[in-house]
Amino acid sequence: MASEAFARWTARTEATLERLLPDPASEPSRLHAAMRHATLGGGKRMRPLLVYAAGVALGTDETLLDAPAAAVELVHAYSLVHDDLPAMDDDDLRRGQPTVHVAFDEATAILAGDALQTLAFAALSASDAPAQLRIDWVGTLAGASGVAGMCGGQALDIDATGRTQALQQLQHMHALKTGALIRAAVRMGALGGGADAGTLARLDVFASALGLAFQVRDDLLDIEASSAQLGKTAGKDVAQAKSTYPALLGMEGARAKLEELATAMRDVLAPLGERGAALVALGELAVKRSH
Amino acid sequence: MASEAFARWTARTEATLERLLPDPASEPSRLHAAMRHATLGGGKRMRPLLVYAAGVALGTDETLLDAPAAAVELVHAYSLVHDDLPAMDDDDLRRGQPTVHVAFDEATAILAGDALQTLAFAALSASDAPAQLRIDWVGTLAGASGVAGMCGGQALDIDATGRTQALQQLQHMHALKTGALIRAAVRMGALGGGADAGTLARLDVFASALGLAFQVRDDLLDIEASSAQLGKTAGKDVAQAKSTYPALLGMEGARAKLEELATAMRDVLAPLGERGAALVALGELAVKRSH
Repeated sequence: MASEAFARWTARTEATLERLLPDPASEPSRLHAAMRHATLGGGKRMRPLLVYAAGVALGTDETLLDAPAAAVELVHAYSLVHDDLPAMDDDDLRRGQPTVHVAFDEATAILAGDALQTLAFAALSASDAPAQLRIDWVGTLAGASGVAGMCGGQALDIDATGRTQALQQLQHMHALKTGALIRAAVRMGALGGGADAGTLARLDVFASALGLAFQVRDDLLDIEASSAQLGKTAGKDVAQAKSTYPALLGMEGARAKLEELATAMRDVLAPLGERGAALVALGELAVKRSH
Repeated sequence: MASEAFARWTARTEATLERLLPDPASEPSRLHAAMRHATLGGGKRMRPLLVYAAGVALGTDETLLDAPAAAVELVHAYSLVHDDLPAMDDDDLRRGQPTVHVAFDEATAILAGDALQTLAFAALSASDAPAQLRIDWVGTLAGASGVAGMCGGQALDIDATGRTQALQQLQHMHALKTGALIRAAVRMGALGGGADAGTLARLDVFASALGLAFQVRDDLLDIEASSAQLGKTAGKDVAQAKSTYPALLGMEGARAKLEELATAMRDVLAPLGERGAALVALGELAVKRSH
């Protein structure tokens, strides 16, 4: 049942992004094409799904959630474009496709990322939602994207490359770099559903656990995929001397941590009953995903 | 009299930026320091002055305008950081100081620009203004910063480097690259003053003329400064084979264009009387500035 909703919400997200992104046939066409390449190239759309799942759990109409779902994905997409740049992670491929600076050029990639961030806030401001809700969405998304969120986490990650981090530092870095935007997605959906302070706080516990689980699973996949595909236990993270959960907790410790987070997510969603089914399913996906 | 107001508004802008920017003593301190370097390094603060001048012309309290004044400057500052990057204009100096990627590094400069853009929208959302006004500011700023504004103009400028543009193309490029943010500054101030549609439209005519005058004067200064300081008539624009107003209109034609714009600005502000004095003065500064 959740998978039906996920297919519908993914389709809504694609349609909204398609509508928001600039026409590739109009000038400056290279910039427009780069923005579309960055955004429409697939991806799990986990953050938009969280927006819809949280909002619908509280009884909101899905159409109200189109703008925040697309906005959080636009911020995620811009961050990937900039993270892939030569001066940052210097990645040539993403989801099997050339990254934006490879498919286009560095200047276009920088500009496309900038314009995608702007488009996220433009989309929120142009939504049909009441002004108070729109500005709350803007505040939530901006708070999660800037120095106290995603950008700050990326800076901490760069600072830590090549040296060992303690578990607490690692957790803080991930909480900002990937956790903040995941929490913002859930909060934006919940705000759309008119959540009271108690519900917002409970859903934030869920979102924080999901963000952490996502990262622990990511670290495990990096090692497991390398082991299977390359016949060795060292993945990209080890090669880059990045601290990871398996490195700090051991493989069994990391798997135990995932189980603990899965239980925490189920417990905190229990009061929502059947309405929380999609959120429960997204929590399980984060824990169990194989790619 | 206008100069007293300008000094006060500049001080308000500095104080607001100082308050909004993250603490350089807290982690990630390198990112925080880079953001401050980019923003607090001086500059004419023309865009914040336009916000205050437009709002005050309509009788608004100055304190209401602190957030939009700082926000438009944060977007301007982020654009300079990214424009200066090696992949873009590759500039080492700005206002006599090393650019952000020189003083820090490229990755930090990319992130600092990203986080400054985010901070602009965070500042608007956190203002004390009514929700409707805050979201109108967000929409105005986002509209002027993205593909249909600043980012789009920068992309057009890159596309045009090395080839000659017709006057109409040049004007369109500048209208997006620098004009859009100047118009947004005036509009954000006017929105703060509760301007009706007619007043918004009239002030937009002023802002468009000011943006164009600013650029024509910039082109003239590039040639005059080069002539005086270097003993030759070719400036950086000529060296980069960029189309300029003097190249397309001749020096006399460009100066006549400036006069024409000055007259248009005075005419459209006339109905505001004494309340429009600061806007008139800013228009004259754009036409007559010597640096």
